Amino acid sequence: MTAAILCTGTELTRGELVNTNATWLAEELTSLGFEVGAVDCVDDDRDRIRRALTRLGAEHEVVLCTGGLGPTTDDLTTECVAGLLAVPLVRDAASLEHIRALLARFGRGMAPSNAKQADFPEGASIIPNPRGTAPGFYVRIGRALAFFFPGVPREMKAMFRETAVPVLAPLVQGGHHQLRLRCFGLPESEVNDRLSGVEAEFEVNLGYRASFPEIEVKVLARAANPADAKQRAEAATRVVRERLGEAVFGEGTTTYAESLLALLGERGATLSLAESCTGGLVAEMLTRVPGSSRTFLGGTVAYANEAKTALLGVDAAAIASHGAVSEPVARAMAEGARARFGSTLSLSVTGIAGPDGGTPEKPVGLVHFAVADARGTSAEQVRTGGTREQVRLRAAYIGLRLVRRVLLNGHGAGGG
Amino acid sequence: MTAAILCTGTELTRGELVNTNATWLAEELTSLGFEVGAVDCVDDDRDRIRRALTRLGAEHEVVLCTGGLGPTTDDLTTECVAGLLAVPLVRDAASLEHIRALLARFGRGMAPSNAKQADFPEGASIIPNPRGTAPGFYVRIGRALAFFFPGVPREMKAMFRETAVPVLAPLVQGGHHQLRLRCFGLPESEVNDRLSGVEAEFEVNLGYRASFPEIEVKVLARAANPADAKQRAEAATRVVRERLGEAVFGEGTTTYAESLLALLGERGATLSLAESCTGGLVAEMLTRVPGSSRTFLGGTVAYANEAKTALLGVDAAAIASHGAVSEPVARAMAEGARARFGSTLSLSVTGIAGPDGGTPEKPVGLVHFAVADARGTSAEQVRTGGTREQVRLRAAYIGLRLVRRVLLNGHGAGGG
Repeated sequence: MTAAILCTGTELTRGELVNTNATWLAEELTSLGFEVGAVDCVDDDRDRIRRALTRLGAEHEVVLCTGGLGPTTDDLTTECVAGLLAVPLVRDAASLEHIRALLARFGRGMAPSNAKQADFPEGASIIPNPRGTAPGFYVRIGRALAFFFPGVPREMKAMFRETAVPVLAPLVQGGHHQLRLRCFGLPESEVNDRLSGVEAEFEVNLGYRASFPEIEVKVLARAANPADAKQRAEAATRVVRERLGEAVFGEGTTTYAESLLALLGERGATLSLAESCTGGLVAEMLTRVPGSSRTFLGGTVAYANEAKTALLGVDAAAIASHGAVSEPVARAMAEGARARFGSTLSLSVTGIAGPDGGTPEKPVGLVHFAVADARGTSAEQVRTGGTREQVRLRAAYIGLRLVRRVLLNGHGAGGG
Repeated sequence: MTAAILCTGTELTRGELVNTNATWLAEELTSLGFEVGAVDCVDDDRDRIRRALTRLGAEHEVVLCTGGLGPTTDDLTTECVAGLLAVPLVRDAASLEHIRALLARFGRGMAPSNAKQADFPEGASIIPNPRGTAPGFYVRIGRALAFFFPGVPREMKAMFRETAVPVLAPLVQGGHHQLRLRCFGLPESEVNDRLSGVEAEFEVNLGYRASFPEIEVKVLARAANPADAKQRAEAATRVVRERLGEAVFGEGTTTYAESLLALLGERGATLSLAESCTGGLVAEMLTRVPGSSRTFLGGTVAYANEAKTALLGVDAAAIASHGAVSEPVARAMAEGARARFGSTLSLSVTGIAGPDGGTPEKPVGLVHFAVADARGTSAEQVRTGGTREQVRLRAAYIGLRLVRRVLLNGHGAGGG
């Protein structure tokens, strides 16, 4: 079963908007078991919309379209579909009432342009949109079942899940099941090598998606029925986890910060930070998670040396003799933050993010880390590469990984 | 002149990667004066690649393609183009030498799969790629001039600018000039209303791109020659700036943090932070800018009340009587941070980011700000809406705006 996606809108063809709708729909269709052969965009041009629909409807079994269902004059999709199918537009009373009620809630009346949103090609099945004024619809175009959604991501996604998935899922033969593991700390080539043979052994497909500095491993099993597919995907995933070890930090959409905060929560532990080169990035990653305040007490961004001394009690002489980017200063920062915040653990990060400030002895990309708790302090040193943004992002992950290692293994071999 | 973009790669049709290349190229083509009619993706399938190239080459004057120039067996673009044009592949000696030298720098030898990257359809013009092993090329397909680039964004962008733009720019008749202003603090509808009449008066096109919480205003002028276009775009931009006032914080790709750091630098002023609900986000935005350490001394993320007292010297009694989210505490945080960091100015942010923690009196989205300097302290209070992420992001911008207001206007009407 091949599928295609067609997004309409001049804002897309002019590059004013990144087309995240297309990516989201492509991923959903792939997860459902479809092979997506085309992801196209056209501008708000009647002729180009009609030609694209005709072509995709002839080549694929399913076509998903977004955009062009709004109230303005450049919203042309419904009219183009009716023209293509040579059927009249028919006004739907229930949709009209829904639009009227929704506008009334915002204290607005019904304009003729809004009433137009209740018009559909004769014979179309309507896709309700509880969240907005643009209902969708689906019809057959050529050999394809063609679905039409508004371009607003929140509305489109809900309509796809609520109305399209129940129609689409039965079209795919057999069962399929996909699991996603999120990893950090191994290069993509190493992940590949470690997982060699898994595809053949379990009859699954492994997919990789690098999203710096993470790698996501997708395990997709197809089988005669859903239960078999699930079982096979789960068996393969267990082996993937074993082979990748601590590099796997979560499943599905879990972030590194979420997985660490959950682990801290289980242990009843709290965390504080002393950041230098990451400049608040680690704190920002942690506090992005709702409820993080239960576990994360706070941090300092001690960029200037004087700040390291004034806020964290780092000995000015230690900075003078070892430099701000050094193991002794990293240790003192972590211990100082722990004393001030009264947290179970404290993490420090001090390094040279670049592009300037490197020396032959301490090059751009050199970062020192330390994690202090009641049992002692572990330190780690890394030399990483890339842009300023990449150095900072990778350093943030390495710091959080050190917290996890100390929490799980103490200050033994795994921590230092 | 209409143009099309074709991106190849199964990672795109499976939704494993957001297609930012397409958006970038669409925006560049639009800026050059082309009308982009189609932005298509196909998977790594010979037949679909060939059909897409044939179709787009028949419909447009320019086609830009990305992807499929790599060394692996699923990199099919070059071969497809040669097949389509019925010409043989010819190995280019200079490209081969470039690839060999680049691999040698990484201590690697030349594999046959890499040598393949020096093959081009006979008669093609080669596009050098100083940054990678995949040179590009351009040929005529149908009525279109078709350009082929690798999918790696950094390489593709440089090759587009260095080789394609000099070929493409002269194809567009007349002159055109575009300026971009970045704005924060006005709703899109207000920006629209304030700029009404500008398009007609100066014969320019105004484009808007909302990228939360910013709005970018693009001023595009087309004229008989480049000088006229430039003059008209600049005249219109002056009026746009006047009408939007302080909401305009920069031009082109300038970030809010960059514009504020530049202003602080001009005044010889330094900044420190006391963040609560933004959790390090403001520090992260500032330190993302290379060289920020000259102006930004550091900050605290005082999430827990005890941290506000221990690190910033905020009176525990003030927190008890007014609550952590209050003007007195915001003022004490800013003044405390300024004393500890010894900075010219200090900004504090304390609020309720949600989704939990709100009360009828202090709802989610309530944020207090203060900026302290030697002359005094200004405070501001805002109630904003949206998700946790949106509350935090908008709060970060509002905080930076308050710093700018105090720096420019002192603690007068503009600052409070």
